[in-house]
Amino acid sequence: MKEEDKSIGVFDSGVGGLTVVAELIRSMPGEDIVYFGDTARVPYGTKSPETVLRFARENLDFLKKKDVKIIVIACNTASSVALPLLLVEEDIPVTGVLLPGAKAAAAATENGRITIIGTSATIRSRAYEKELYRLNGDLEIRSLPCPLFVSLAEEGWLDGEITEMVVHRYLDSLAEFGADTLVLGCTHYPLLKGVISKVVGEGVKLVDSAMETALEVQRILERNNLVRDGDDGGRFDCYVSDTPYLFKEVGERFLGRPIDRVEHQNTGD
Amino acid sequence: MKEEDKSIGVFDSGVGGLTVVAELIRSMPGEDIVYFGDTARVPYGTKSPETVLRFARENLDFLKKKDVKIIVIACNTASSVALPLLLVEEDIPVTGVLLPGAKAAAAATENGRITIIGTSATIRSRAYEKELYRLNGDLEIRSLPCPLFVSLAEEGWLDGEITEMVVHRYLDSLAEFGADTLVLGCTHYPLLKGVISKVVGEGVKLVDSAMETALEVQRILERNNLVRDGDDGGRFDCYVSDTPYLFKEVGERFLGRPIDRVEHQNTGD
Repeated sequence: MKEEDKSIGVFDSGVGGLTVVAELIRSMPGEDIVYFGDTARVPYGTKSPETVLRFARENLDFLKKKDVKIIVIACNTASSVALPLLLVEEDIPVTGVLLPGAKAAAAATENGRITIIGTSATIRSRAYEKELYRLNGDLEIRSLPCPLFVSLAEEGWLDGEITEMVVHRYLDSLAEFGADTLVLGCTHYPLLKGVISKVVGEGVKLVDSAMETALEVQRILERNNLVRDGDDGGRFDCYVSDTPYLFKEVGERFLGRPIDRVEHQNTGD
Repeated sequence: MKEEDKSIGVFDSGVGGLTVVAELIRSMPGEDIVYFGDTARVPYGTKSPETVLRFARENLDFLKKKDVKIIVIACNTASSVALPLLLVEEDIPVTGVLLPGAKAAAAATENGRITIIGTSATIRSRAYEKELYRLNGDLEIRSLPCPLFVSLAEEGWLDGEITEMVVHRYLDSLAEFGADTLVLGCTHYPLLKGVISKVVGEGVKLVDSAMETALEVQRILERNNLVRDGDDGGRFDCYVSDTPYLFKEVGERFLGRPIDRVEHQNTGD
């Protein structure tokens, strides 16, 4: 198989990475995509860097066996914790959602103050902060873990009084800081965009890295002459580590279109 | 080693099973205990029966290598989904938190109406209902998954307005049913006992199966002549599948005493 005809490999701890897949399909409809969601071991955001790195390596090894030309880590926690090491270890391009999100935030802010929210593991890693300071050393940054947002998104409580109070409880303490840009540093959080925006006010720009990540992938493929041509592409293969029947319905909500088939695949265990 | 000098093996998806360990230590201080918490793959309650069964088998195999005389599944989800099969497969005694909890509820109710709350997997399995109907075919039972309770307990939001509203949102629909007994069918839920009791009213008895499970283990050991004698016992060995440093602090809250040492151990993966 010609190198450029290979697939784009994408993995996430679960279902959230499908928001990145949706953007990849929108911007590069001719590319084949293989997705792996580690639904048996989800979530990653509450676990240690060592364990997240081990899981990320196993997921990556699975995708490499599927003949991929690039690997996209569509999970903020795995991008924060594992990407720097995987970049060094791997011989094919690997990218994550972190740098694209950081770039978008650095470009969006006008007053130089940025807030980052994410899982405990992502925030503890300080990966977004380091990336942002590298882009612009003058930025002022605050960051905060919001663990309950994942459960609210998965429970489907996307608005209403309880969700609004939880958002207030986490974010009110940051109001005084006066950031004009808020990075949604977890692929689940965009589902709560409406409530978050209502709480922090319309003056605050919300950065959701899915779209930025798709553009970054496109740039990497172009730079490496890996863009597929021809019009027989567009396959989407989906694998998960838990049994597929729980995945399809929620997955279609995240992807925004039907998923034909989901296959079960253990990695690592 | 004499059979009765072997340890009691206990496993859970994470930290919650330590509430059962606390009761085992209280009632049988001379026994050695080996605990395994599958913190790398926690939670089980949102995953499929097939995956939970696979994890349970792997945890059980790990404990068997540690020379145990009985295995206690201190996790409602794994007890609901995996115990019936494991009982048939294994040649040492295996018990879970489910039957003790069901027995306590059947004994506690006066009006014959019982509500069960637990994880999605536990409720979907209908295991508590089947066990209760076997004990008393005249009972009336309602059951309800409350997924957000686990996140609230882990976030440490054990009381306050938000937690009270979440409890109302889940449980108000069951008020009309008029149960006098509520089974806390997840080892995390007892941490929210105060708020739950306030919402459902003091007339409703809350059943927390940890203590009942310890009594059941004692009965099984006595029946099989497996009670340890001598006074050199009382060791507690603790293994987890994620790195231990995240486990110790929360673990001590659940166990109610210090944990000397936690070792890291992968099972399955």
